[in-house]
Amino acid sequence: MLHDHPVTAYEELVDRSRGRAMLVSCLELLAWDELTCMPRGGVGNRGRQTAYLVGLLHDASSDPRFGDLLELVEGSDLMEDPESASAVNARVWRRQHDRAVRVPRGLLEELARVTTIAQQQWAESRQDGDFRSFLPHLARVVRLKRDEAACFAGTMDAYDALLDDFEPGCTRARLARLFRAIQEPLQDLLGRIAEKGPMVHSVVLRRDYPIDRQRILGESIAADIGFDFECGRLDATTHPFFSCVGPGDCRITTRYDAHDFGESFFAILHEIGHGLYEQGLAPDAYGTPMGESSSLGVHESQSRIWENLVGRSRSFWRHCFPRVRDLFHTALHDIDEEDFHRVCNEVRPSWNRVRADEVSYDLHILVRFELEQSMIAGELDPSDVPGAWNERYARVLGVTPRDDREGCLQDGHWAAGQFGYFPTYTLGNLFAAQLMAGARRDLPDLDDRFAEGEFRGLREWLRERIYRHGQRYSADELVRRATGSPADPATMMERLRRKYEELYEI
Amino acid sequence: MLHDHPVTAYEELVDRSRGRAMLVSCLELLAWDELTCMPRGGVGNRGRQTAYLVGLLHDASSDPRFGDLLELVEGSDLMEDPESASAVNARVWRRQHDRAVRVPRGLLEELARVTTIAQQQWAESRQDGDFRSFLPHLARVVRLKRDEAACFAGTMDAYDALLDDFEPGCTRARLARLFRAIQEPLQDLLGRIAEKGPMVHSVVLRRDYPIDRQRILGESIAADIGFDFECGRLDATTHPFFSCVGPGDCRITTRYDAHDFGESFFAILHEIGHGLYEQGLAPDAYGTPMGESSSLGVHESQSRIWENLVGRSRSFWRHCFPRVRDLFHTALHDIDEEDFHRVCNEVRPSWNRVRADEVSYDLHILVRFELEQSMIAGELDPSDVPGAWNERYARVLGVTPRDDREGCLQDGHWAAGQFGYFPTYTLGNLFAAQLMAGARRDLPDLDDRFAEGEFRGLREWLRERIYRHGQRYSADELVRRATGSPADPATMMERLRRKYEELYEI
Repeated sequence: MLHDHPVTAYEELVDRSRGRAMLVSCLELLAWDELTCMPRGGVGNRGRQTAYLVGLLHDASSDPRFGDLLELVEGSDLMEDPESASAVNARVWRRQHDRAVRVPRGLLEELARVTTIAQQQWAESRQDGDFRSFLPHLARVVRLKRDEAACFAGTMDAYDALLDDFEPGCTRARLARLFRAIQEPLQDLLGRIAEKGPMVHSVVLRRDYPIDRQRILGESIAADIGFDFECGRLDATTHPFFSCVGPGDCRITTRYDAHDFGESFFAILHEIGHGLYEQGLAPDAYGTPMGESSSLGVHESQSRIWENLVGRSRSFWRHCFPRVRDLFHTALHDIDEEDFHRVCNEVRPSWNRVRADEVSYDLHILVRFELEQSMIAGELDPSDVPGAWNERYARVLGVTPRDDREGCLQDGHWAAGQFGYFPTYTLGNLFAAQLMAGARRDLPDLDDRFAEGEFRGLREWLRERIYRHGQRYSADELVRRATGSPADPATMMERLRRKYEELYEI
Repeated sequence: MLHDHPVTAYEELVDRSRGRAMLVSCLELLAWDELTCMPRGGVGNRGRQTAYLVGLLHDASSDPRFGDLLELVEGSDLMEDPESASAVNARVWRRQHDRAVRVPRGLLEELARVTTIAQQQWAESRQDGDFRSFLPHLARVVRLKRDEAACFAGTMDAYDALLDDFEPGCTRARLARLFRAIQEPLQDLLGRIAEKGPMVHSVVLRRDYPIDRQRILGESIAADIGFDFECGRLDATTHPFFSCVGPGDCRITTRYDAHDFGESFFAILHEIGHGLYEQGLAPDAYGTPMGESSSLGVHESQSRIWENLVGRSRSFWRHCFPRVRDLFHTALHDIDEEDFHRVCNEVRPSWNRVRADEVSYDLHILVRFELEQSMIAGELDPSDVPGAWNERYARVLGVTPRDDREGCLQDGHWAAGQFGYFPTYTLGNLFAAQLMAGARRDLPDLDDRFAEGEFRGLREWLRERIYRHGQRYSADELVRRATGSPADPATMMERLRRKYEELYEI
């Protein structure tokens, strides 16, 4: 049927992939703008714009000619070296094409429209803690996501089909094993910490932190760590996120609270981790899988590394504390560097995932993972989410949200149709611990460098082992190659135990 | 060839037109973001995004099936009533289709890429007053615009072909007549005013006007006039502009100078005029010509009405001055309402178009109109623009810019490839004077209403006669129908003479 040569076929696929990337790039901007700038009245139009581009994207991915060209490449020696750009790109294109031909265009367009409006409603419902006004939107999104999952019936478990979009190849069985391995050890560690009572200095993080100064601090630390403001920006939004519009245009956001130091600071570190990954991808490969991040789990590992494994380390605060004290001398007049580092690591389970400490964080994810599986399986009706949420929070974290704002309305992922996204946070923690252990082995003076405000060593290590590979390897393989061993929950737990036993003297 | 029924053909055309509008809507957001938010490093990607969407837009407009469907409609009784939506839409689609089939896709894509980068460079060159760094970009844009115009060789004059994109049906011959009719009277009026010397109070506009308070004033006056912030926003940029992303999402910008009251204030009124027009278009007709503005000249008439014919009127300041004095009591402690109104109308030719008074404004346009015609005709080399600019400014306005920042680098239109845009400002002044004369005749108590802060009467008059008609009539016909007579330069000149002879007592 096709008379093309595999090499010209591959070139056409690259062109088509780059065209597709332009649509994705426009969608990124639509989404960023929606959360940062768009006036409320623009939501209907934004939904239609998004649906229109999603439709074009689907056309591009499902085009039979795309499939024909791909077959030609797959049958050629362009696949010989599995690590070559052609083989890597073809593998990912195959996955995208096979997904696209299964899911009808109309369903994706409707999802785009419905989730745009659902996200707007979520933001309003959350503000008022009013789950009832959000429920019809959530119900509609769940129904559509179940329809999407049903397109893979007979080939894949429903939840796995959705998860695959965020973490290719991952399954809920694997995630369930992971959570089984960490739930009890985490709860046990939490329990031992709780016996020690709250930290004596913890109130200092709630003093006055003028927002203009928080902004200055955030930008200066971001620049220290290596975020390139020539190719990016930092804004304030109700929910922190990152968005990569394209090469040279990577945007992060945070939220400021004048009486909470950590709120913006650690969110900035988190989003910078994402930003460094995007800014470190091979620009020449932009628009092809070789120039795209490996998986969401790997992406989250990058944010968790800078937020927690660097940003909550003793050596980081040796560098950072003098600057923070200069900016907030009134709030910090009676605390020293060591105690400030300690309170930044206070462990106290709460209703709040984004602000959660390292020990309780994955238990927040466990709750979401269980609930979203049940919704997709049709076992949990969206109207029962608040009750199920609160019941699990009480059981898993010993916490009872005061209202749905503190409960099931705190995150916007479900409104955005992102079922299968949450577990990638825990994969991120898992990968982050493994990667950081590897980096510390390869770079024994890492802490001395951090204390000097020198982060280039770690950044270059990550660029060499993670960023530049794009989608060359699966997430697991990438981590294994970077560190010499597969990501192991024991590594993560061991690190947490060591750190917090020392901090809490338990 | 086509077996479709004219009615189903028309329906398909409406769908296609609405799809096209989605691309335009995305392009609007890309352009808005580029000027307000995009980090510098994103310019290459932005050029590629824009080119990609421009290519899709060209495909949509030039599609042979689009032409076939259109023929079917044009041969049917859907054209019977020339004011019906179907006839209006078909006429405009015809113009769009005929233009699109003449201009190659590649040329438009290149223009999109080149102008994106040229605009970024213009902003930097302007800041430094460095024409040399801008010249290669300008030369490239001019060459491409000449190529675009050449696509119409044999059917249309080169400049007219470009002008037609902004002001359908207008020609440079008609514009030349218009400028001939007003140049001498304007220069004569300027001369008589100059003899009176500068206004005694004019320094007050240069006192301290804290920017946060200017912002509050701008937003409150915008709301008074009827700009809907639920469906729009107001930002600060280096060059004020408006952008309509789509229904419910209309954005205006201004620039603030803490020592210049008029800089932001009148720019806001100007852009609000644009915004009200867009917010007043028929939302149901969105995505079809019936839901789009008539021409750029009509659009500019709306901005000039609110900036000048309302915003610089005596009655407007009766309403507005008390609020302004409350906000800026230090700057305005020694001036009263009447004198403040007078200084807002000071006539003093300068290098600055955006800040120009009503009498000299069209002479700024005349200079640009002449120069851009010469560039498109190939008679003026872009490298000679600064000299030609300064020579004409000296001759026409008696002003010599100190450098190219004050000279030919002050406007970004040419960097954006907008040759043929400038004269629509003068058409706007012409239409505005005619429309306002008509409104005053129909609404004799207009000034009393303005003095009370009540602008609904004028707004509703404009909605009824201009906004809701979309592209139903040509610009000239729209103005004629609204006011009972065609736009006449004599009306405009008569108003200017009466106003300024009274103000300057000449």
